Amino acid sequence: MNHRFITFEGIDGCGKTTQLQCTAAWLKSQGYEVSVTREPGDTPLGAEIRHLLLAGEHVPVAEAELLLFLADRAQHVREYIQPALAAGQVVLCDRYTDSTRAYQMAARRLVDEACDLEALLDFAECGVRPGLTLWFDLSLDEALQRMQRREAAGEQATRLDQERQGFHQRVAGAFAELQRQQSQRIRRVDAAASIEEVQQQVRTLLSLHLAGRT
Amino acid sequence: MNHRFITFEGIDGCGKTTQLQCTAAWLKSQGYEVSVTREPGDTPLGAEIRHLLLAGEHVPVAEAELLLFLADRAQHVREYIQPALAAGQVVLCDRYTDSTRAYQMAARRLVDEACDLEALLDFAECGVRPGLTLWFDLSLDEALQRMQRREAAGEQATRLDQERQGFHQRVAGAFAELQRQQSQRIRRVDAAASIEEVQQQVRTLLSLHLAGRT
Repeated sequence: MNHRFITFEGIDGCGKTTQLQCTAAWLKSQGYEVSVTREPGDTPLGAEIRHLLLAGEHVPVAEAELLLFLADRAQHVREYIQPALAAGQVVLCDRYTDSTRAYQMAARRLVDEACDLEALLDFAECGVRPGLTLWFDLSLDEALQRMQRREAAGEQATRLDQERQGFHQRVAGAFAELQRQQSQRIRRVDAAASIEEVQQQVRTLLSLHLAGRT
Repeated sequence: MNHRFITFEGIDGCGKTTQLQCTAAWLKSQGYEVSVTREPGDTPLGAEIRHLLLAGEHVPVAEAELLLFLADRAQHVREYIQPALAAGQVVLCDRYTDSTRAYQMAARRLVDEACDLEALLDFAECGVRPGLTLWFDLSLDEALQRMQRREAAGEQATRLDQERQGFHQRVAGAFAELQRQQSQRIRRVDAAASIEEVQQQVRTLLSLHLAGRT
């Protein structure tokens, strides 16, 4: 477990990316060295894998999709996250293993009787686990409205954005279930509030965490 | 275990690809429906993954390299191998999981204390295991000479071809060790003989296997 490794999780449209940027600026103002990163695709190899996964030119089978996300993660951890943590930085990461659990496993209903998929997730993490995960909890309806506004403003939807409603419901349910199971690590943020109010919740949780009082 | 799924394995330069083509022609002349395929890269998605792995523009870390080969395999099995087997064809595949064991695990010295890597390999196979594996055993010196002749003739070396001598020695040692461990499935072919003599060995082994007498 890496105390200074903080992951931001939730359904698309929940506001986590905006909050991550605000949080990085705030932490820097507090004197922390901060690295901001995201999955998939934040290494040169990862950018190519992200394109294969999300551009929609290919439709990977469920097993291949999971393995491609994990390949991106292993490269990301070894090339970027581990060195940043070793240098004493706080690393804020937009999506990590909980997104894999929610999207590639729960929503795809991917199970394997012979293989412990959690061990597979561990392998890809190369020993790097978040000390704190912020789950931005927003209703699916509200998130979809935000996504539609983004698309109207010209942002391109990815192959996963275009999945059916049932897929996104399973993703949302999986995040809620993960938070129940791992309530010590995963803290809920009410993402329906204003940007400022959500940021205040994040600062409170992060202050406690970084001070070692959670 | 899929009786009609036959894999061809060995170090680069061992002659397995030539033998695979000869074998396919011979099986067809015997009345079999035959599919010929290879790893990595024999699906549209796989061709992109193959490029990421072998072209040398990127250097994946060991974990990412393994996971990319496995993503290619899962796509290959679901999209190509399973349907061909279901249609009653004999499937001849140039490299499969034993190559992953030899190149991505043994030669890279990739071990993971927490994760059973064999379970990970099983996951990527999606339940499709070869009934027979032909291991083309050739000395490293002879194989390297053949590779140099190929390069002199204009064939491009891949990123893995260009690994150091020690890497290729570990690959060769791993194939020999796998054959000792799984001598029922993996049959040794003396690949130092002439193309015709090697093909005769292959035909003898395949005839016995397909008749169910091995």
